[in-house]
Amino acid sequence: MSFSKEQLEEYTAFAARLADAARGQTMPRFRSGAQIFNKAGPWFDPVTDADREAERVIREMITKVYPKHGVIGEEFGASEGEGPWRWVLDPVDGTRAFICGAATWVTLIAVEYEASPVLGLIDQPYTDERWLAVNGETQFRHGETVVKCQASGVRDLSKARISTTDPRPVAYFNDRESEAFARLSKTTRVARFSMDAYAYGLLALGEIDLVVEAGLQHHDYAALAPVVIGAGGVMTNWAGGPVGTDDRGETIAAATPELHAAALDILAG
Amino acid sequence: MSFSKEQLEEYTAFAARLADAARGQTMPRFRSGAQIFNKAGPWFDPVTDADREAERVIREMITKVYPKHGVIGEEFGASEGEGPWRWVLDPVDGTRAFICGAATWVTLIAVEYEASPVLGLIDQPYTDERWLAVNGETQFRHGETVVKCQASGVRDLSKARISTTDPRPVAYFNDRESEAFARLSKTTRVARFSMDAYAYGLLALGEIDLVVEAGLQHHDYAALAPVVIGAGGVMTNWAGGPVGTDDRGETIAAATPELHAAALDILAG
Repeated sequence: MSFSKEQLEEYTAFAARLADAARGQTMPRFRSGAQIFNKAGPWFDPVTDADREAERVIREMITKVYPKHGVIGEEFGASEGEGPWRWVLDPVDGTRAFICGAATWVTLIAVEYEASPVLGLIDQPYTDERWLAVNGETQFRHGETVVKCQASGVRDLSKARISTTDPRPVAYFNDRESEAFARLSKTTRVARFSMDAYAYGLLALGEIDLVVEAGLQHHDYAALAPVVIGAGGVMTNWAGGPVGTDDRGETIAAATPELHAAALDILAG
Repeated sequence: MSFSKEQLEEYTAFAARLADAARGQTMPRFRSGAQIFNKAGPWFDPVTDADREAERVIREMITKVYPKHGVIGEEFGASEGEGPWRWVLDPVDGTRAFICGAATWVTLIAVEYEASPVLGLIDQPYTDERWLAVNGETQFRHGETVVKCQASGVRDLSKARISTTDPRPVAYFNDRESEAFARLSKTTRVARFSMDAYAYGLLALGEIDLVVEAGLQHHDYAALAPVVIGAGGVMTNWAGGPVGTDDRGETIAAATPELHAAALDILAG
């Protein structure tokens, strides 16, 4: 890659400013009766004015400061740029958590250079927690405390803590995927649900060992993969290939290569 | 009831001191590799040194200050008292959340007078959130901000946000209960899982409308019922009777009597 250290430092500082600006839109609406809209389709796919206003504000900031950069956002789609840089945004990942008052929704920001992620940021405003992955390292800030992230050393499924947002075949998983997850989770020690992208942050902290999902889109995984990998974890699709190269958005994040391989075996059936 | 306002005020202040003391034992162990023990039985039923040390410390405080009071705790069982007062403790409700780094575990403290709850306290130390129900009112403190709790006005299942800790028939629910929950959750707008007692706090804040569970024990529901009822909600077993009077620990908490009645109908099948 042919960009300078200074350029990446500049974008890192700017990403933090974007996350702060998103907080200004999301926090006043959290637990305050945010307006809820249903996007479309047969099942409830909510979006709130928190999602929309946060994306509107941070897109404006990017367009103003870096007019040649591309932008992909969950709510307002893709804007083509000129050149190698692109910002990938999910202003509120976990809208269901948001509208239920649970502090596991997050803001996701990624920077890509020639379509490869070079920065990933996960921000939880209510708990004041922020994960930042850059230069192959992930750090975590909670309030004033900053620590370097390190995934757990768990290699055996029988000791693993697994998470997925919804194990039922009603939302992200189809029947096959739901059955594969049930097969896998049965071999693990404990399962937790409904944490969306926050679960990848917990994996980076060494608190969760496996996150298995389907239906992830570019604006979801772009920020997550650097956070997982920067903490020493592994993130691929269910075939072991790069995330986003299958047609179902199937992803698996694991604390160790051994755990990853064992889980892939069971998912394959 | 024949106790004075001053007596209840004294126990309210003492309950807050107990919750603070529990924080001293739980917080240093959260996300810090707490020792995990398996209680027994065919499935993983974890307890940590955080549970045990927190209960040990707060039981000692009670015994020292109120030697005649009874105490029921999750980890160290029941101590008979003399007279009408009893403390009911669950030092870490949500041990699975605790060992996965998720900040939805809580400390539960209840005070009973002649076996009826007169005070309920839910404490989440990491987020600095505390619910206190006394004199028929529930208040919520987050950091320095205190608000009076009011459950939502949701009366229709189609608008309801429902929660249970695990929808699968592998933990708390048996097959019949898991099917009943699936039937009910299908009629609601959105479902969230894995929040343990924290979900009742969100119901009191108007953010969740229904919490449906089984397997709740005295040390779980003693603190929760006052919090729900003090926010204007309803809490019963699945037959509409008092919580704890069935042999399965089936509980339902609802934001409104209308929502409660509609949910009971569907749970009955």
